Amino acid sequence: MREVALVGAGMTRFAKHMDKGMKELSREAIEGALKSAGVEADALEAVAVGNAMAGLITGQECIRGQVVLREMGIGGIPVINTENACASAATAFHLAWLYVASGMYDVVLALGMEKLYHEDKKKSFAAIGSAIDVELMQKTLADMKKATQEKGGGAGAGKSRSMFMDFYAEFARSHMRKYGTTKEHYAQIAAKNHTNGSLNPHAQFQTPRSVEDVLASPMIADPLTRMMCSPIGDGAAALVLTSAEKAKEFTTKPVYVKASVLGSGKDHQPGDPGVTERMAKKAYEVAGIGPEDLDVAEVHDASAPAELIIYEELGLCQQGEGGRLIDEGVTALGGKTPVNPSGGLLAKGHPVGATGTAQIAEVFWQLRGEAGKRQVEGAKVGLTENGGGMVRGEAAALAVHILSV
Amino acid sequence: MREVALVGAGMTRFAKHMDKGMKELSREAIEGALKSAGVEADALEAVAVGNAMAGLITGQECIRGQVVLREMGIGGIPVINTENACASAATAFHLAWLYVASGMYDVVLALGMEKLYHEDKKKSFAAIGSAIDVELMQKTLADMKKATQEKGGGAGAGKSRSMFMDFYAEFARSHMRKYGTTKEHYAQIAAKNHTNGSLNPHAQFQTPRSVEDVLASPMIADPLTRMMCSPIGDGAAALVLTSAEKAKEFTTKPVYVKASVLGSGKDHQPGDPGVTERMAKKAYEVAGIGPEDLDVAEVHDASAPAELIIYEELGLCQQGEGGRLIDEGVTALGGKTPVNPSGGLLAKGHPVGATGTAQIAEVFWQLRGEAGKRQVEGAKVGLTENGGGMVRGEAAALAVHILSV
Repeated sequence: MREVALVGAGMTRFAKHMDKGMKELSREAIEGALKSAGVEADALEAVAVGNAMAGLITGQECIRGQVVLREMGIGGIPVINTENACASAATAFHLAWLYVASGMYDVVLALGMEKLYHEDKKKSFAAIGSAIDVELMQKTLADMKKATQEKGGGAGAGKSRSMFMDFYAEFARSHMRKYGTTKEHYAQIAAKNHTNGSLNPHAQFQTPRSVEDVLASPMIADPLTRMMCSPIGDGAAALVLTSAEKAKEFTTKPVYVKASVLGSGKDHQPGDPGVTERMAKKAYEVAGIGPEDLDVAEVHDASAPAELIIYEELGLCQQGEGGRLIDEGVTALGGKTPVNPSGGLLAKGHPVGATGTAQIAEVFWQLRGEAGKRQVEGAKVGLTENGGGMVRGEAAALAVHILSV
Repeated sequence: MREVALVGAGMTRFAKHMDKGMKELSREAIEGALKSAGVEADALEAVAVGNAMAGLITGQECIRGQVVLREMGIGGIPVINTENACASAATAFHLAWLYVASGMYDVVLALGMEKLYHEDKKKSFAAIGSAIDVELMQKTLADMKKATQEKGGGAGAGKSRSMFMDFYAEFARSHMRKYGTTKEHYAQIAAKNHTNGSLNPHAQFQTPRSVEDVLASPMIADPLTRMMCSPIGDGAAALVLTSAEKAKEFTTKPVYVKASVLGSGKDHQPGDPGVTERMAKKAYEVAGIGPEDLDVAEVHDASAPAELIIYEELGLCQQGEGGRLIDEGVTALGGKTPVNPSGGLLAKGHPVGATGTAQIAEVFWQLRGEAGKRQVEGAKVGLTENGGGMVRGEAAALAVHILSV
């Protein structure tokens, strides 16, 4: 396996783009990536595409990548369409990395794209509900409905939208009981990410928020308020990968991929490390570094408590100390290890199948000193963590990448 | 890149399995592959899964592989969900091969699975229609409808099912005009494949058919009769890949992957080689062989004329000579290069996202001398060709694999 470099990144603003489809969104991201890399489209030797939900939103299945790429005149080369729920784009990046690391191709594009907003909101919600075991969910809902009807009550269906947030709320309460974490800790995380987002022109939400603002926003599932939950969105993000050797032809500022690790949840004993902790350890081992070496991280804050537990799973602090970490400002801009300087999923937004490559794009810009007002000074080593879907209570897919200059 | 071996294969019968979902179908294929390889499930280090259309049929998107694998207790490892229309499973195989060839993992499973039959036939047809540019198709249909209404006629929609067959029919007529090919040539191909299917316990159709039977079956799109068109179906097929070195631990009869090539269509001048010809040439080059060295091939006969043109694209004969090849019995069992001894898509069936791995499973059995009544005697070198989707008149994905003992 040879060393792989990133030489270009591009992304759309994450937003509600009612006037744009996946073709327009992807074109903007790809053109940005190619331009920043100084790579012509016809130099690409393969493309890996991540998308989670277009089938259920637009009816386009099967060849989602080819449909957007041929529009731009990109054809003839291998196109891998991949999905892994919210980790679809990191999975696509992992495959693009594998093509280059294996020695098979020298110049490969990774694209993440998603179009979630639809005039019919039910379509968006149904699509998000497809990131779990749908057959099992339908059976459970049918059983619930039957039980409720037997009791003479109403139906229990239509909860797919908030199911993930119910899960996060339960987790948040459990952490509060066990470790004395408070809802203010979660609010601090959300306030940090919204304020970071205000410095990022790619962010869906660009208004700085205080802890008070976060706590005053509508309650979704106690203790989660709306500002502690990631929104849905539309967008795309693309990256150009080359061999480390080849990178010299394009840039004097390559960013190297030190670890590309993908895993999935499994049945395990309570107390055993979960998939995020396992993948983070593996990534540190492959990269030959530890969490203390990280200068910046972009993590999967689908909700504010998710970010808090990820601090612990990544080893930025001990188990139960996530609250202390945020209290001490360690993960804020200016702290020892800023987390989600982009605004994260909470503020930058979360067009599901685009999130993974957007996280990597952010770290790419941070390590090259190109992150503008949200720049982490002197960042040399960064990590991304992107999780997706859920089966039997654990993430169905989890990708960790470590990058360095 | 190191050499990769196949050590096990398993598949369901391809059929209308109204009582089985993807979990049951996949379990049967995976258990068969593991058992034939003598590999325990916990020895697997990664899984690549191909599926084209479950999102539109069952609502299950995002994590289709994890949902079936966790049911069997397989978790913790990387799971890549990929789709490339009818070439989804060959794409999954290509990724499994890449994992092993790169040196990243030693033991990897490739799974193709599809559940196409649904009580609501419209769902099946809509899913098949998603293997083209859906946005463009919707626009075209809207324009057609508008034009027809302006003329006072009926609507022009609802044609998605037969669109691929209309394309094949037009192609078949063009070959007849140019080269003197006859509808009897196409019927001979269909009769050969149905007769081969009668020897294959995995085939959806197991009734031998004559040229007369094929020509007498209902007309779908002139000159294509029903028996010249592949059916839809349900099924799964799985393969266990290991490094060539590691294969010795499991079997004395490994089958080696000599070439794994994936490409996509592109805009080109008329007369320039299409994607199948380009990929076949590349595969021969990588494997260091020519078409004359093939003992057996499994190709993408979505229709009988498709198989005829594939003869020419693979270099089994010169352009325009496909009819002669079938007349001379070259591609029949007992001929120099039997094609689709399994029955092919026409008779074995075509559960879209399972076809690619089923083709490779067939060649695996043929090269190990385990193909029963349809055995090609002494076969040492085989090829599979799996195409999928369509954008701008050419296959959106095309995979060619060359295997040998």
